[in-house]
Amino acid sequence: MIQVGVVGGTGYTGAELLRLLSGHEQAGIRVITSRAESGRPVSELYPNLRGHIDAAFSEPDVKVLSECDTVFFATPNGTAMTMARELLESDVKVIDLAADFRIKDIEDWQQWYGMEHACPDLVASAIYGLPEVNREQIKTARLVANPGCYPTAVQLGFMPLIENGLVDTGNLIADCKSGVSGAGRGASIGTLFCEAGDSLKAYAVQGHRHLPEITQGLTEATDDIIGLTFVPHLTPMIRGIHATLYARAKGDIVDLQGIYENRYVDEPFVDVLPPGSHPDTRAVRSANMCRMAVHQLPGSDMIVVLSVLDNLVKGAAGQAIQNFNLMSGLPETMGIAQPALLP
Amino acid sequence: MIQVGVVGGTGYTGAELLRLLSGHEQAGIRVITSRAESGRPVSELYPNLRGHIDAAFSEPDVKVLSECDTVFFATPNGTAMTMARELLESDVKVIDLAADFRIKDIEDWQQWYGMEHACPDLVASAIYGLPEVNREQIKTARLVANPGCYPTAVQLGFMPLIENGLVDTGNLIADCKSGVSGAGRGASIGTLFCEAGDSLKAYAVQGHRHLPEITQGLTEATDDIIGLTFVPHLTPMIRGIHATLYARAKGDIVDLQGIYENRYVDEPFVDVLPPGSHPDTRAVRSANMCRMAVHQLPGSDMIVVLSVLDNLVKGAAGQAIQNFNLMSGLPETMGIAQPALLP
Amino acid sequence: MIQVGVVGGTGYTGAELLRLLSGHEQAGIRVITSRAESGRPVSELYPNLRGHIDAAFSEPDVKVLSECDTVFFATPNGTAMTMARELLESDVKVIDLAADFRIKDIEDWQQWYGMEHACPDLVASAIYGLPEVNREQIKTARLVANPGCYPTAVQLGFMPLIENGLVDTGNLIADCKSGVSGAGRGASIGTLFCEAGDSLKAYAVQGHRHLPEITQGLTEATDDIIGLTFVPHLTPMIRGIHATLYARAKGDIVDLQGIYENRYVDEPFVDVLPPGSHPDTRAVRSANMCRMAVHQLPGSDMIVVLSVLDNLVKGAAGQAIQNFNLMSGLPETMGIAQPALLP
Amino acid sequence: MIQVGVVGGTGYTGAELLRLLSGHEQAGIRVITSRAESGRPVSELYPNLRGHIDAAFSEPDVKVLSECDTVFFATPNGTAMTMARELLESDVKVIDLAADFRIKDIEDWQQWYGMEHACPDLVASAIYGLPEVNREQIKTARLVANPGCYPTAVQLGFMPLIENGLVDTGNLIADCKSGVSGAGRGASIGTLFCEAGDSLKAYAVQGHRHLPEITQGLTEATDDIIGLTFVPHLTPMIRGIHATLYARAKGDIVDLQGIYENRYVDEPFVDVLPPGSHPDTRAVRSANMCRMAVHQLPGSDMIVVLSVLDNLVKGAAGQAIQNFNLMSGLPETMGIAQPALLP
Repeated sequence: MIQVGVVGGTGYTGAELLRLLSGHEQAGIRVITSRAESGRPVSELYPNLRGHIDAAFSEPDVKVLSECDTVFFATPNGTAMTMARELLESDVKVIDLAADFRIKDIEDWQQWYGMEHACPDLVASAIYGLPEVNREQIKTARLVANPGCYPTAVQLGFMPLIENGLVDTGNLIADCKSGVSGAGRGASIGTLFCEAGDSLKAYAVQGHRHLPEITQGLTEATDDIIGLTFVPHLTPMIRGIHATLYARAKGDIVDLQGIYENRYVDEPFVDVLPPGSHPDTRAVRSANMCRMAVHQLPGSDMIVVLSVLDNLVKGAAGQAIQNFNLMSGLPETMGIAQPALLP
Repeated sequence: MIQVGVVGGTGYTGAELLRLLSGHEQAGIRVITSRAESGRPVSELYPNLRGHIDAAFSEPDVKVLSECDTVFFATPNGTAMTMARELLESDVKVIDLAADFRIKDIEDWQQWYGMEHACPDLVASAIYGLPEVNREQIKTARLVANPGCYPTAVQLGFMPLIENGLVDTGNLIADCKSGVSGAGRGASIGTLFCEAGDSLKAYAVQGHRHLPEITQGLTEATDDIIGLTFVPHLTPMIRGIHATLYARAKGDIVDLQGIYENRYVDEPFVDVLPPGSHPDTRAVRSANMCRMAVHQLPGSDMIVVLSVLDNLVKGAAGQAIQNFNLMSGLPETMGIAQPALLP
Repeated sequence: MIQVGVVGGTGYTGAELLRLLSGHEQAGIRVITSRAESGRPVSELYPNLRGHIDAAFSEPDVKVLSECDTVFFATPNGTAMTMARELLESDVKVIDLAADFRIKDIEDWQQWYGMEHACPDLVASAIYGLPEVNREQIKTARLVANPGCYPTAVQLGFMPLIENGLVDTGNLIADCKSGVSGAGRGASIGTLFCEAGDSLKAYAVQGHRHLPEITQGLTEATDDIIGLTFVPHLTPMIRGIHATLYARAKGDIVDLQGIYENRYVDEPFVDVLPPGSHPDTRAVRSANMCRMAVHQLPGSDMIVVLSVLDNLVKGAAGQAIQNFNLMSGLPETMGIAQPALLP
Repeated sequence: MIQVGVVGGTGYTGAELLRLLSGHEQAGIRVITSRAESGRPVSELYPNLRGHIDAAFSEPDVKVLSECDTVFFATPNGTAMTMARELLESDVKVIDLAADFRIKDIEDWQQWYGMEHACPDLVASAIYGLPEVNREQIKTARLVANPGCYPTAVQLGFMPLIENGLVDTGNLIADCKSGVSGAGRGASIGTLFCEAGDSLKAYAVQGHRHLPEITQGLTEATDDIIGLTFVPHLTPMIRGIHATLYARAKGDIVDLQGIYENRYVDEPFVDVLPPGSHPDTRAVRSANMCRMAVHQLPGSDMIVVLSVLDNLVKGAAGQAIQNFNLMSGLPETMGIAQPALLP
């Protein structure tokens, strides 16, 4: 058994990580920390884990965490960077589900996240944990920056177009719709049932933190300049991201469907649907899976990609375990191969 | 009192029309027809109308309808065109909430709607009932084609840009999100609570009937060619449309906010929100109102317009009454001035 | 115009009061207070009121409020009692939508509400604002205690049985289901979309503050002892209360349906549905209406009453305006006669 | 591997069965039938099963089914009884998830289900598949009648009270709330998103088919007469049943909590929560688990039990697999031990 620790297990990402880890045959959960809930049984906060996780939350303590083989950070932005160095020096592998190590340009990161970075040197060595792009590097990584939910859906959806130089990379649009769990479990008026329910709105149109992350990822796949418009929307569902991606073909494209299928043919967690499909988010609910469909519009150079995932799974905790499996030399699909819950 | 008839009062559009008409001080509901529910009290099907509408549904009968001053068709596509001529010849004004008279190009219509048109000559004389564009013609119209829900949200949102020649009209995108009531009250698996709930999907990406309607409307506002990509999505809310519109500025635009505000300053049912706003659909739930916000993205020529309305009100029944008021010489806001229901 | 003030206009009850008052032809809103949002335009917080209410929130100030004819308190429990005396002495009528004046037994109130009462003497003079029971007293009241949402649904549902001595009053059960707006607009984890959505739970089974209020009301209608079990549930809808009431008939009851119909025949805001009906909460959404159905179970002495209302309207703001109309000598239905919103 | 067949795999119960069977290490799915969808890949109808189930639906054929070791019927009522005999005679074990074999009194069954029973003799030999009551008989059963969703929640909740003679069995009330998936996947107006969403209603107050099933089960646990009032409600959630049970204690009860805990201490799929708990349905979403809490009301002889389960899992497909495991000599928890999905 590989000993793992979870820092910040009270949010939705942490809870989902615990749900998945509890059924993972090679992961032993050694410690689950929460400053706010220290001493409280995990299953009291998350009754779905009764009978699956007996532990109580404990105060985060680097010494205790150092006894783990791998530590997951399911904490707010700015936490992992304060503890990562000590853990890495104790030979603990670190997977950060927040944004501390995602952006290589430190100044850019500091501007978007509004704080000073505590360990810029570690950012340089961190591997961006998108296995469909960085699998080999992840296998030997000590520090993995687990991608954001929107960035996973958008990058996977655009990647075959960008990598193959098929579209005008300066004119990309990602119109994204997210379930409310993406906003976390903090008490706030905007995500109350009566505020977010039976309604829909865009937000952060002037700029969202996931924009630089997506742009960085797409830029690494091409020599061209990436010009991306990214508009997120809050929608009345609990889980799920639907990215509707728009790009203009640079010329005739032969067998776009085949290009997508070939790109992901060996990927266990990307599913290219048959031509003409419209994936719905529930087709990936609770599953570590990104399903997508690609459409060329008749009489137009417009390509529309529909890419869906569960923001808490392939967009967070599931992908973190996928990275954990790769880093640990385990089968990549271990513990995250269950089908989605539908209806 | 103006005597009105409602043909096809059992769908959501019809029910909403009845709800609004029941409180309209100058409209007297003379007849409500439904082939399927003939003889059944309206308030049995729609208990919210108990105490407001005592009538029962009756078989549609042109003779009876001819005694009305105005007849609303809240029927499926293809019905109004079979009865309109006789009513018009009897001096009855007709407002069709379906699509029979919206598209001027008959062949185009026949292709999209999959049937032969019964009265192409009437299409030519019909007025497209978007008061913010065609108010004067509506006032004297005998036959009004009430716009679709998506087309209302998209046209109103794009109009200031198109009319003023501010954007590349060949590169327009309308990413639209609709509540489920837009699909009507027919029994179908796709709109069951357990199919459409807690999930989200695009549909009709290869082509939706509202595309030619929107294109026709935008084309009339410019000499340039309209190239529009329109992608509708089904979202888990009952009412509401959120159109997210993308256009590229042709040059520097001074005071885009002012351009929008000026365009709609005298419009009772279009509300341009302050700069930086993100309207949510519930802000127009049950109200005859289109609220919008316009964003210029930093460091980009991209303009994003967010336009919301209630698909059953400003997108259907409310706009029909707005047209009815105009056609009848009544104050335009009569009976449709109530604030939205929130939460 | 009657000048009214609204203290505490930022919660859902306050917002609903403002929505209804904005369309009331005899009420002029003079002042809307909120300590937290003082200075902010009301329509910025509630965009549905744009174009309907131009005022900004102001600091609560008894002097300003004293210039009103009637002041509504849409505040948390414990606020109205600190300002009511001064207003009453200034000849202002007071309607408290919270619980400060509902319970006649001061000790009981203090125990359930966990605070000392500031003006027990006023409680004695306050009229409980359930028009279907206390209409005549309300007409001349200076201080009205507007009933709670559950108590309105439960009392109206049980009243014909209790008043006519038809059931075993010691064995009453009210199994009640509430929409989430009943919990208010405060930021809390329990009412987040992802906590309250797609789920259902009972709460406060060991005792809820509305129990003594209901018991007091039922007790006044009979000489018998009231023994009531009240179990509230939180359900994933925004508005609505569904009370399922159980009582055992003491003997044969002839024409129970008729007894219910007769009891409420003259009531504009209580609707007894035909035999065999099952009202749904949406049939009263946004409307000042309590609809109910009464069932005698075959082969049993069990009577089941189904009673629904919109917790923010007949369960709060709408009933407050009904009381306001009565207190002001206006037609009882003024401003609150609109049909429910469906779907 | 045990070869299993699924008859009627297109409904929600069938789909859930397939989801669970696809991860069951000892069940090999040999055939999945559907008259309506014959020839269509299962994963086309249920995209969540892409990559998990490759088979297509086939016409139901007793010969093919006879090659299975066990056949599950996830069909409408009245189907299993027409095929069961032939299968049993071919030495195939049968688990019927519908109601054909649940009610021992054939006349009673015929009245409630409105058809003639095809094989009354088989009913006598069928075992009612509630493992917490009939475990030993299930282990050797050839034909199991899988319980209904409401009956499972209600019987498990009442059982400790009834078995121990603690309450007045003539005065039991079960006020039950169900998610919409309980109504199945058939196209019908009543379960449309816009009809069942954001609303709540009781139904079948005059009598529901699950009443005789519950009564039969409770009756077997006592010598006393069972008098049960059962009122089901349709609530706006996808999965979940919440049974709120009311019973009157016959005398003082010492340690009611302990009685419940002891009754279920060895049960892997019944979880008695700590005193004072209020289980929410999401705590069992997707899991084969019934969680419950028991409350004695202060100053009263009233006992309230809150019992929740997922109607498609412990209320249908999960329990069917639990029975399958028992009938097959497998560990009872195989394939159905995953934690619930939350949020």
